[in-house]
Amino acid sequence: MPYMERRRPNGGRLSTKRNEADQIEILSGVFEGKTTGTPISMMVRNTDQHSRDYGNLASVYRPGHADYGYDAKFGFRDYRGGGRSSGRETLARVAAGAVACKALAELGISFDTKVTAIGGHPMGPEAEAYVDQCRSEKDSTGSEVICCVHGVPAGIGDPVFDKLDARLAQAIFSIGAVKGLDIGDGHLVSRARGSENNDSFRMVNGVVTPVTNHAGGILGGISTGADIVLHVYFKPTPSIARPQETITSGHEDTEIEIHGRHDPVIGPRAAVVVEAMTSATILDAMLINMSAKMDSVRKFYEK
Amino acid sequence: MPYMERRRPNGGRLSTKRNEADQIEILSGVFEGKTTGTPISMMVRNTDQHSRDYGNLASVYRPGHADYGYDAKFGFRDYRGGGRSSGRETLARVAAGAVACKALAELGISFDTKVTAIGGHPMGPEAEAYVDQCRSEKDSTGSEVICCVHGVPAGIGDPVFDKLDARLAQAIFSIGAVKGLDIGDGHLVSRARGSENNDSFRMVNGVVTPVTNHAGGILGGISTGADIVLHVYFKPTPSIARPQETITSGHEDTEIEIHGRHDPVIGPRAAVVVEAMTSATILDAMLINMSAKMDSVRKFYEK
Amino acid sequence: MPYMERRRPNGGRLSTKRNEADQIEILSGVFEGKTTGTPISMMVRNTDQHSRDYGNLASVYRPGHADYGYDAKFGFRDYRGGGRSSGRETLARVAAGAVACKALAELGISFDTKVTAIGGHPMGPEAEAYVDQCRSEKDSTGSEVICCVHGVPAGIGDPVFDKLDARLAQAIFSIGAVKGLDIGDGHLVSRARGSENNDSFRMVNGVVTPVTNHAGGILGGISTGADIVLHVYFKPTPSIARPQETITSGHEDTEIEIHGRHDPVIGPRAAVVVEAMTSATILDAMLINMSAKMDSVRKFYEK
Amino acid sequence: MPYMERRRPNGGRLSTKRNEADQIEILSGVFEGKTTGTPISMMVRNTDQHSRDYGNLASVYRPGHADYGYDAKFGFRDYRGGGRSSGRETLARVAAGAVACKALAELGISFDTKVTAIGGHPMGPEAEAYVDQCRSEKDSTGSEVICCVHGVPAGIGDPVFDKLDARLAQAIFSIGAVKGLDIGDGHLVSRARGSENNDSFRMVNGVVTPVTNHAGGILGGISTGADIVLHVYFKPTPSIARPQETITSGHEDTEIEIHGRHDPVIGPRAAVVVEAMTSATILDAMLINMSAKMDSVRKFYEK
Repeated sequence: MPYMERRRPNGGRLSTKRNEADQIEILSGVFEGKTTGTPISMMVRNTDQHSRDYGNLASVYRPGHADYGYDAKFGFRDYRGGGRSSGRETLARVAAGAVACKALAELGISFDTKVTAIGGHPMGPEAEAYVDQCRSEKDSTGSEVICCVHGVPAGIGDPVFDKLDARLAQAIFSIGAVKGLDIGDGHLVSRARGSENNDSFRMVNGVVTPVTNHAGGILGGISTGADIVLHVYFKPTPSIARPQETITSGHEDTEIEIHGRHDPVIGPRAAVVVEAMTSATILDAMLINMSAKMDSVRKFYEK
Repeated sequence: MPYMERRRPNGGRLSTKRNEADQIEILSGVFEGKTTGTPISMMVRNTDQHSRDYGNLASVYRPGHADYGYDAKFGFRDYRGGGRSSGRETLARVAAGAVACKALAELGISFDTKVTAIGGHPMGPEAEAYVDQCRSEKDSTGSEVICCVHGVPAGIGDPVFDKLDARLAQAIFSIGAVKGLDIGDGHLVSRARGSENNDSFRMVNGVVTPVTNHAGGILGGISTGADIVLHVYFKPTPSIARPQETITSGHEDTEIEIHGRHDPVIGPRAAVVVEAMTSATILDAMLINMSAKMDSVRKFYEK
Repeated sequence: MPYMERRRPNGGRLSTKRNEADQIEILSGVFEGKTTGTPISMMVRNTDQHSRDYGNLASVYRPGHADYGYDAKFGFRDYRGGGRSSGRETLARVAAGAVACKALAELGISFDTKVTAIGGHPMGPEAEAYVDQCRSEKDSTGSEVICCVHGVPAGIGDPVFDKLDARLAQAIFSIGAVKGLDIGDGHLVSRARGSENNDSFRMVNGVVTPVTNHAGGILGGISTGADIVLHVYFKPTPSIARPQETITSGHEDTEIEIHGRHDPVIGPRAAVVVEAMTSATILDAMLINMSAKMDSVRKFYEK
Repeated sequence: MPYMERRRPNGGRLSTKRNEADQIEILSGVFEGKTTGTPISMMVRNTDQHSRDYGNLASVYRPGHADYGYDAKFGFRDYRGGGRSSGRETLARVAAGAVACKALAELGISFDTKVTAIGGHPMGPEAEAYVDQCRSEKDSTGSEVICCVHGVPAGIGDPVFDKLDARLAQAIFSIGAVKGLDIGDGHLVSRARGSENNDSFRMVNGVVTPVTNHAGGILGGISTGADIVLHVYFKPTPSIARPQETITSGHEDTEIEIHGRHDPVIGPRAAVVVEAMTSATILDAMLINMSAKMDSVRKFYEK
């Protein structure tokens, strides 16, 4: 399933050397090549986890990780890798996104998702060299991902708390390591004038067309028919091999060095996760939207 | 209720001259000065709406507004002001926030929310002059708001789709005109190194303390005990009096000039809306959190 | 609005003499005679409440009422009438049902709802005489209501936790004073044989037709196209003027006599409430159902 | 796990001879003998399904089953056993109930659940003989189950749509084959007088005590502290070996005989399912209830 492979992009350079075969077993929901309406449940067993790699993390809180928060919340923590705050968790999101994207493709909707910069360097040899440098310095770097959705019709989304951008924002910020999100021009709109930020409408070949797309395809929580554009900002991988100051679970100051196989940058593996969460959110909104007009409801139920 | 007044900050300079008395009538949920557990419903009648101000908008889609999307979704639109895509809608959010903030204050939680920049100018005489300039040029400008929450204990939030930052992101992006959100360092983390972005933990006077707060108080979706910091980016007011190109609801090219009383900048009125949505989200998360540990549940139900 | 009048059926004989004009003010959601997609909010002020009627209930828990449970839950209680455990609360349900029934009528769905028995007496002069007798004896009586829904197409509902009967059951048991619910033959099925309880299918004039309808129109949580039949059992009005043993909120034994205007039987006023809750539940299920088939989704979004 | 065994009670007499080992694999949520807060996911593979047993059901709708509804809803159906309308589905409910009951036991709550009658015969040799007779006549019979919950404190539940009885009703009617539910005296209240149906409160050894329990432990949607009593009515097993009239998926009249291993009565296997759904619902309500009083919230978050 190529979609799943995108969590492990271009060999070893930007991502880890873990042997994660990610064999998916479909447990339910598909019969004779079609979905049945039953939830599609898929399972991937974690075959490559070395429990010993994580043993020393039982009693120390890793900086930049959820360890301390989990203990504060639950009073108890599974310190081994693979938990819900691990990047491994995104596998389930990508599996769901693979299904959502297939459904959206039938509705004429496609995605263009890519890493745009690493550590502020636009993608290219310079960015890759910067990753190598971070790795060699036992450090990591932040990154940026753009997800552009083509073909979403106008009128998708809801007016108040479930605005399409609000649902997308929840979906994107639910991905670990995301710290910033822009819709369309995003944070840059705070410096713009209304006269330049408003997207004019024009009729082009008989089609309503926003002439520009500063809004990123969403106004007032509702899609405009223009491309939906999300700009997602990932923090540097928090697991680094340098010594860091932290505390123990017994609340004593200590130092930690985190070894194991960790990507020095998150974006290249996470781009497909952004796309997956976006696709599931948009598909949901489009299904919900089918009952927005009484005329459509009446027509649907007419014999 | 002073909280409500914050939607109309510092007189006429940064905000509109509408006479919005905002008289609140409490319809349910309060008895003898205390909440009863019944939903607190409050009503504010829109006394200052001049229906005639909006009449010419019935058949033209305003650029930067939800008009076109609403028609695409619902096939029908109440073109008069005061609908769900109007800034007036935020009044309900602020009323809810006033209640949430009172509850949070009893839990030791307080807010520091302010406009930090207008059109890229840090707040001050220069920013105010810039607003005047935009107004005189029949234009508008974007703005930035910071909301900082003190006193949220560690352990609040959920691990996967209902991460505290994900819930906050939905809440913030559900506010009209928001186009970008940063948690902590936000979009800047994409340029940072792990060694500088990770917040060390230290014991300070017996208290677990993140030494820095690049994370903005949330890691892995769970609060760390540090201040929760949101940076919110508002687009320029889309209603401007300059002529703009757009289309009619009959899909013909046209021009529109939008008159009426519109703020040239959204942030000064919206800061309290950001605080309100943040407070409701955090209070929700804290109430949900009470059942996170079986030990707490057992103690709660012990006689 | 005749629908609302049905909460006050046939004059004074079976129901109270309260002067409840129930003037409805529509606050939002309707414009030029059509719904806009905005929530339709309606308000009815409680003009006929005599606060003094309830004053003696502040410190005594009425048997058969929620008083004690509310205090146990919230630690505080608005002892005046009109709270959420009052029959007045059903007015909101009926207002919602009036809207849902209008929408369902456009989809060819209609209701036949009636009281079938009072105190075990089938409706008729005997039942009315029994009500008079209960009233004269300062007592009250239970009652039964049947709601029959015609025209719901086959295929509505969900397979597991949101089965159509499960959603209806929640809706019906959310009405105060309901203590029993049968779908189709209901509790009688426990005495039936499979060979008599199974409804055969036959083709009748080219239409799939359940020959009998023991199932009450729902199998496996999904509608069969047959009439949906609910049999709802209401307890006797708990407010009676006889002396009853109970306790005070200070946990001392006491006696109470409840005066005021109370119906001696609930069914005649509640029948329309049953219909209202049923209509809202079925309309919801039908809207949700529109996205059940990918073929329908594809056709919906095809230009 | 004895709880799971209760789905296969007393050997072959009342239930099927299927060899369902029901080996549970716990996939997540438990670490070192304790729950971690992560969802507890458990998997049981269906090892005893003979696909050939069901092959002839591909094109015929079984009377009393969801086959026709599923096709009407989804346009496509997995006709093999084990789908969501099969009794096998209840295994997941019982697994969840086993966890909920363990948690409730720590809160002093216990269950007494049993089959009370089969085909109208109270449990005993006569009832068992009746089952044998039905089986020998290629027929099946209905049954009744009582679930009694001890120790739920007063104050659990919500006032309006999420009344405790409403949530229980959804949970119980979500179990396949349930057609009737009584809370407390249930349908019999429709024949009762208020003076006999109201449960008096008295102080007994310093404890608030409902003297009788016609209400089945719930008033106005809130628990009273008395036992919660549910009476659940199951229809006869719809799969019987007698010839039955029905239609094909191509909408032609036909006959069907259903062979395979089917219990002639559902109650004995379903009693534990009723208990499981009840336990999950009550545990949920108790967790939600922890935030019902501001005083409790304040105390919870006080250092």
